[in-house]
Amino acid sequence: MNIVLQEKYKDVTIYDGARIGNNVKIGRGTIIYPNASIGDNSFIGPYCTIGEPTSTYYSSENHDFKSTKIGANSIIRSYSIIYENVIIGNDFQTGHRVTIREESTIGHNCSLGTLCDLQGKLTIGNYVRLHSNVHIGQMSIIEDYVWIYPYVVLTNDPYPPMGKLKGVTIRKYAQVATSSVILPGVEIGKNSLIGASSLIRKDVEPERVIVGVPGKDICSVRDLRDDNNNQIYPWKEYLKDFRGYPWQITKK
Amino acid sequence: MNIVLQEKYKDVTIYDGARIGNNVKIGRGTIIYPNASIGDNSFIGPYCTIGEPTSTYYSSENHDFKSTKIGANSIIRSYSIIYENVIIGNDFQTGHRVTIREESTIGHNCSLGTLCDLQGKLTIGNYVRLHSNVHIGQMSIIEDYVWIYPYVVLTNDPYPPMGKLKGVTIRKYAQVATSSVILPGVEIGKNSLIGASSLIRKDVEPERVIVGVPGKDICSVRDLRDDNNNQIYPWKEYLKDFRGYPWQITKK
Amino acid sequence: MNIVLQEKYKDVTIYDGARIGNNVKIGRGTIIYPNASIGDNSFIGPYCTIGEPTSTYYSSENHDFKSTKIGANSIIRSYSIIYENVIIGNDFQTGHRVTIREESTIGHNCSLGTLCDLQGKLTIGNYVRLHSNVHIGQMSIIEDYVWIYPYVVLTNDPYPPMGKLKGVTIRKYAQVATSSVILPGVEIGKNSLIGASSLIRKDVEPERVIVGVPGKDICSVRDLRDDNNNQIYPWKEYLKDFRGYPWQITKK
Repeated sequence: MNIVLQEKYKDVTIYDGARIGNNVKIGRGTIIYPNASIGDNSFIGPYCTIGEPTSTYYSSENHDFKSTKIGANSIIRSYSIIYENVIIGNDFQTGHRVTIREESTIGHNCSLGTLCDLQGKLTIGNYVRLHSNVHIGQMSIIEDYVWIYPYVVLTNDPYPPMGKLKGVTIRKYAQVATSSVILPGVEIGKNSLIGASSLIRKDVEPERVIVGVPGKDICSVRDLRDDNNNQIYPWKEYLKDFRGYPWQITKK
Repeated sequence: MNIVLQEKYKDVTIYDGARIGNNVKIGRGTIIYPNASIGDNSFIGPYCTIGEPTSTYYSSENHDFKSTKIGANSIIRSYSIIYENVIIGNDFQTGHRVTIREESTIGHNCSLGTLCDLQGKLTIGNYVRLHSNVHIGQMSIIEDYVWIYPYVVLTNDPYPPMGKLKGVTIRKYAQVATSSVILPGVEIGKNSLIGASSLIRKDVEPERVIVGVPGKDICSVRDLRDDNNNQIYPWKEYLKDFRGYPWQITKK
Repeated sequence: MNIVLQEKYKDVTIYDGARIGNNVKIGRGTIIYPNASIGDNSFIGPYCTIGEPTSTYYSSENHDFKSTKIGANSIIRSYSIIYENVIIGNDFQTGHRVTIREESTIGHNCSLGTLCDLQGKLTIGNYVRLHSNVHIGQMSIIEDYVWIYPYVVLTNDPYPPMGKLKGVTIRKYAQVATSSVILPGVEIGKNSLIGASSLIRKDVEPERVIVGVPGKDICSVRDLRDDNNNQIYPWKEYLKDFRGYPWQITKK
């Protein structure tokens, strides 16, 4: 592999075959492997790695780097690692130290918080927001507009360490609160709400509220009220503050 | 922004306007943004970032860096990131890969473990100790001498993802054990003890022991005894090993 | 300390006294401190630190670096930090951003996932597998063939913050599932299975299944069946897919 010296990207290691779009800024120390492409108008922070090779790299003389694509207008913050064979849509954002492994597809307008660890073989929709330090096991499917909060784990091995993996599926608009664990193969229904520190062993119907270890179905999301007795869920109908969603009017 | 080359800080990126105190050591690859200042006799490890810009940086041509201050005699270990608009007192220490976001104030003699993730808009007192991988949500208040253990999360959004944030408050000397989650707006009383893996939904009175999901009040901290039947709490009265606290005689 | 420039390790900081084996590849930006040795045929990724000094380094003019050894045929992925006074066997692998602190011994054929945080004073056997983001407190003992899953914490301070530490012991072949917490001094028996999100306060007998907060003993591992009604534990007897264990025939 040759390293291409580009005057405008000082102290960045860009391998031959990488494609950098127009008006892209790249911080010092970042490594961009062959066959990675960065969309126009993106920022890549310092000390990132784009197109990180998978494990076969360590046992073969001539590793064949698969295609990695970062959409336009993206912000990848420092120390993040995105493996080869990851396709990400436009307007993507990450915090720091994010890891995204191979064979993953992420839609547009997604945001991943600092320290998120995506283990690969994933399908993630559009407008998905993962807060800090979310762990997504292999074979998970996350639909549009889902939010997941810190230290949540989507697992995949029902009989560890046998490795007969079953991914978790999370349907549109669902919210999974802090430190919850979703067991292998479980489906979380549309518009449902999983309370903090819950352990979810069974499928969750749409619009249900589940809390506890193990999780208990306590009510419909439509039964929840805020401190002023206002209905708040399904949140798409009640969210007043702008979150960048297409059905809302931009305030700024 | 200009980068100022300082002969003694080889392979360190120091922007024009940064202030480095006397007898400061800085590891290779570290980036110090404008308007950051490092107190005398401090160590900044390799690959740190001091004065990281907030999100407006990505949409404006001329970002106005706010002031960031690290107190004297501090040790910031490698790969840590401290945002702009963070003020930290003297004798500060971090482990590796710590992230501290904007609009935060941290007192003197504090210590943050490896992988701590402080989300900003925080007020932290003196002699506070966070162990590894503690997540502090925005708007939290942590008083003097509090200890928080690994994977604890202080949350802030009562109706996710509505974003009407309410911070957590933790009063003096309280201990929050491993993997506990504190829900938005909760106050943890002085000298209280939260057991491991607890979920705290309601305010906790001073000197109470709370355990479980959801947390139950099981006794006063004064009722706890160690293996030798000695009283151990409130710990300030019984702590024998030197922890660097001002009321103790230094053994070394 | 002198930095030895080695033509083949461009942009790597190798201090005088470090020993690099034959056919070792080292990524850019990595720092190898004095008295560290890297076994033959190993890969050290970009931005790693091998032989990181302990805290006395910050208060003495002439720190005496203790010996650190990485076995042959190892792969240390990017941004990982291994402290001085750590001895690791052959065929070791890590994910990214792993931290291993001082006074630790790790056997051969071990694997540590991304973001694992090993706090030092540890004894880890052979063929141990830690998934992502496992936190191992000081004084823990982990025997051969144990697997531990994301966000598990092995604690060590029974009366925080007193610091009278008691380590956790995990016996051969035990499995500790996601987000479980093991309290100080607890021993987990051979071939046992700890369910996800459990809190383990008492010793666990061999071959038992424990789940819940606090953990309850629900059955023998021999009572568990998979979806096809096949026995699955003790897993050593039933594991069909090759995991690199010596009692299995390599499929590839």
